[in-house]
Amino acid sequence: ALVTSFNASATNEPIQPIQAVTPKNPDLVELGKMLFFDPRLSKSGWISCNSCHNLSMGGTDNIPSSIGHAWQQGPINAPTVLNSSMNLAQFWDGRAKDLKEQAGGPIANPGEMASTHELAVSVLNSIPQYRAKFEKVFGSDKVDIDRVTTAIAAFEETLVTPGSRFDKWLEGDKNALNKQELEGYKLFKSSGCTGCHNGPAVGGALYQKFGVHHPYKTDSKIEGRKSVTGKDTDLNVFKVPTLRNIELTYPYFHDGAVWTLEEAVTIMGKLQLDRDFNKKEVDSIVAFMKTLTGKQPDIKLPILPPSNNDTPRPQPF
Amino acid sequence: ALVTSFNASATNEPIQPIQAVTPKNPDLVELGKMLFFDPRLSKSGWISCNSCHNLSMGGTDNIPSSIGHAWQQGPINAPTVLNSSMNLAQFWDGRAKDLKEQAGGPIANPGEMASTHELAVSVLNSIPQYRAKFEKVFGSDKVDIDRVTTAIAAFEETLVTPGSRFDKWLEGDKNALNKQELEGYKLFKSSGCTGCHNGPAVGGALYQKFGVHHPYKTDSKIEGRKSVTGKDTDLNVFKVPTLRNIELTYPYFHDGAVWTLEEAVTIMGKLQLDRDFNKKEVDSIVAFMKTLTGKQPDIKLPILPPSNNDTPRPQPF
Ligand code: HEC
Ligand code: HEC
Ligand code: HEC
Ligand code: HEC
Ligand SMILES: [Ca+2]
Ligand SMILES: [Ca+2]
Ligand SMILES: [Ca+2]
Ligand SMILES: [Mg+2]
Repeated sequence: ALVTSFNASATNEPIQPIQAVTPKNPDLVELGKMLFFDPRLSKSGWISCNSCHNLSMGGTDNIPSSIGHAWQQGPINAPTVLNSSMNLAQFWDGRAKDLKEQAGGPIANPGEMASTHELAVSVLNSIPQYRAKFEKVFGSDKVDIDRVTTAIAAFEETLVTPGSRFDKWLEGDKNALNKQELEGYKLFKSSGCTGCHNGPAVGGALYQKFGVHHPYKTDSKIEGRKSVTGKDTDLNVFKVPTLRNIELTYPYFHDGAVWTLEEAVTIMGKLQLDRDFNKKEVDSIVAFMKTLTGKQPDIKLPILPPSNNDTPRPQPF
Repeated sequence: ALVTSFNASATNEPIQPIQAVTPKNPDLVELGKMLFFDPRLSKSGWISCNSCHNLSMGGTDNIPSSIGHAWQQGPINAPTVLNSSMNLAQFWDGRAKDLKEQAGGPIANPGEMASTHELAVSVLNSIPQYRAKFEKVFGSDKVDIDRVTTAIAAFEETLVTPGSRFDKWLEGDKNALNKQELEGYKLFKSSGCTGCHNGPAVGGALYQKFGVHHPYKTDSKIEGRKSVTGKDTDLNVFKVPTLRNIELTYPYFHDGAVWTLEEAVTIMGKLQLDRDFNKKEVDSIVAFMKTLTGKQPDIKLPILPPSNNDTPRPQPF
């Protein structure tokens, strides 16, 4: 009875708890983890997925725009991979339909890992220990980009962060939030933030214009959904970002220009809701948002099989 | 009686098994691990010790010379941090007397992490969760470079790799090596390799000239011990590198110019011993050297405490 009433209270909320994930195919996930950490997917041999989506740091790089091959400055802030399986689509503009489609992108992006699918695959194919793992998981030891991205996506699907204080509160532990945090949550709902930031990921479920009431001032040339649909009405429309683990994923916004949650909340209030929050209101929303930090994935660092005499060599310079 | 005879046989060998390490102060080691993985010790916020001494890849970066801040090309190959506590001194030229003294170097090296000790310390000092860990370990919550390097060194002292097949053989398991590997080991001893590569780390215990009988041809300007002692006789004298995990720490030599163990062995034979090994001999020594790969450290990826409004920001570009 107790459990039922907790569930009932949670279902009335616009945010749902994150569910733990038990991988269906642990070998596939383990292979995906190796690939996520393997810098040999990059031209230099030095940049892995984890370089920009550091799982020690909330699945991000915590810099405004990413450093890519040869220290190129990327055009946009790296979103977290944590809970990214819950996104309606991947990238700020949603141009990849899912994690598998997304994972092929950075490997071959000249500004990121700067390799090619052919080169990355030939590196993996040259390593018998990798081939054995592909064989175990896929039934044959052929490495191809489809299998590589399938494995990476399977690993990413395990990167969920249940157990936040807010989820404990949703699940019925009324002491999990203090007074300020609870006030923040109430204001987050009543002022309209949950219109966009909702669902288990507190975001990720829809596209919205950034700058509903007032334009966002930025030097960034990024156009958002317009670059996918070609429509002028999609200018500055972005996938609403998850607010899970938001304390860890600074700096904020697609241009990474805002370093504090206080400033991000103030901007959201003004631009999206035409509302000027006072300091107490901002502080309470920030306090609430910090309760969204969940248990970070337990990652045992993978030991990667060595390259050998047949492995194409990295080209760092 | 059996055990005694195994020990006796091992002590007659020029190489001794690596002993597992049980840390005296696990909290100190855990703090050191966090610092080893924390890219906020660098100016960019993107380069950690683990970027160049990747514990997924034998404690190295597997590229000829390291990539540093702003993609600067480093002058020398990054040696492994595995078993580095056994070195008589640190760096190829031995210019740091121990791991603690060494650890201060890369943080403030403009070609590596490009920060300053002051900046790195102020980043850590701004983070209450770090200060609490320093308090627990050192008795007060002051972060200073001395404590930072003490913690990193304590972590590095745990990075030993016992349990290699060769160590099993040394400990009496006569089936741990096959015929070719054993022949390789005998040749490694009889031809004189163990004159320089000996002790538990199979190296790291003395300085020797690279190019005893014939000069090494390289574009590198590195002078070895001469840059420490100023003596002409120390030109091209280097710390003899460990051969533990040598299959993982390619490419080889201080200039990282040699990618295969076969070529490295051929060069060592000619330059250091004036001996031309035939293919069978080279292959057997290589087969032996691959038995020196030990159990890689079990590392649980540390979760780093987030920066906050008071933390100095990274300067990636
Ligand atoms: C050089 C930095 C860099 C590297 C390396 C990198 N990423 Fe990303 N990642 C980014 C940036 C920047 C974005 C946002 C791009 C955009 O939206 O246009 C992104 C977006 C993503 C997203 C979408 C998240 C969301 O909420 O939309 C996922 C998932 C992801 N990356 C996974 C990966 C994987 C898997 C790899 C390795 C195969 C990888 N990344 C390598 C920087 C990087
Ligand atoms: C009309 C939709 C909408 C509403 C309402 C809205 N947001 Fe947002 N929010 C977005 C979009 C879209 C972005 C991404 C903006 C960008 O960077 O391009 C965003 C970004 C954010 C970010 C930065 C996330 C990150 O990882 O960079 C925070 C924090 C945030 N919102 C909090 C709030 C709060 C608090 C409220 C209520 C005061 C709110 N939002 C209301 C759509 C909305
Ligand atoms: C940008 C790449 C890079 C970074 C970052 C880096 N190192 Fe190194 N490390 C090197 C190179 C290159 C050398 C060899 C330098 C020399 O001998 O002159 C080295 C040498 C060492 C050695 C000596 C090993 C031996 O056998 O002599 C140790 C120990 C070490 N580093 C630990 C660390 C620690 C701890 C950090 C972080 C505080 C770190 N390194 C950061 C590239 C790097
Ligand atoms: C007289 C001393 C001496 C002898 C004898 C010697 N070595 Fe070395 N060895 C060194 C030194 C010094 C280096 C480092 C050279 C450099 O890169 O500057 C080295 C480097 C190596 C390396 C590369 C290690 C790395 O991590 O880059 C290998 C492999 C190696 N030796 C194997 C052997 C073998 C096999 C033999 C016997 C055939 C041998 N050595 C004999 C001193 C010696
Ligand atoms: Ca814009
Ligand atoms: Ca961010
Ligand atoms: Ca090397
Ligand atoms: Mg600003």
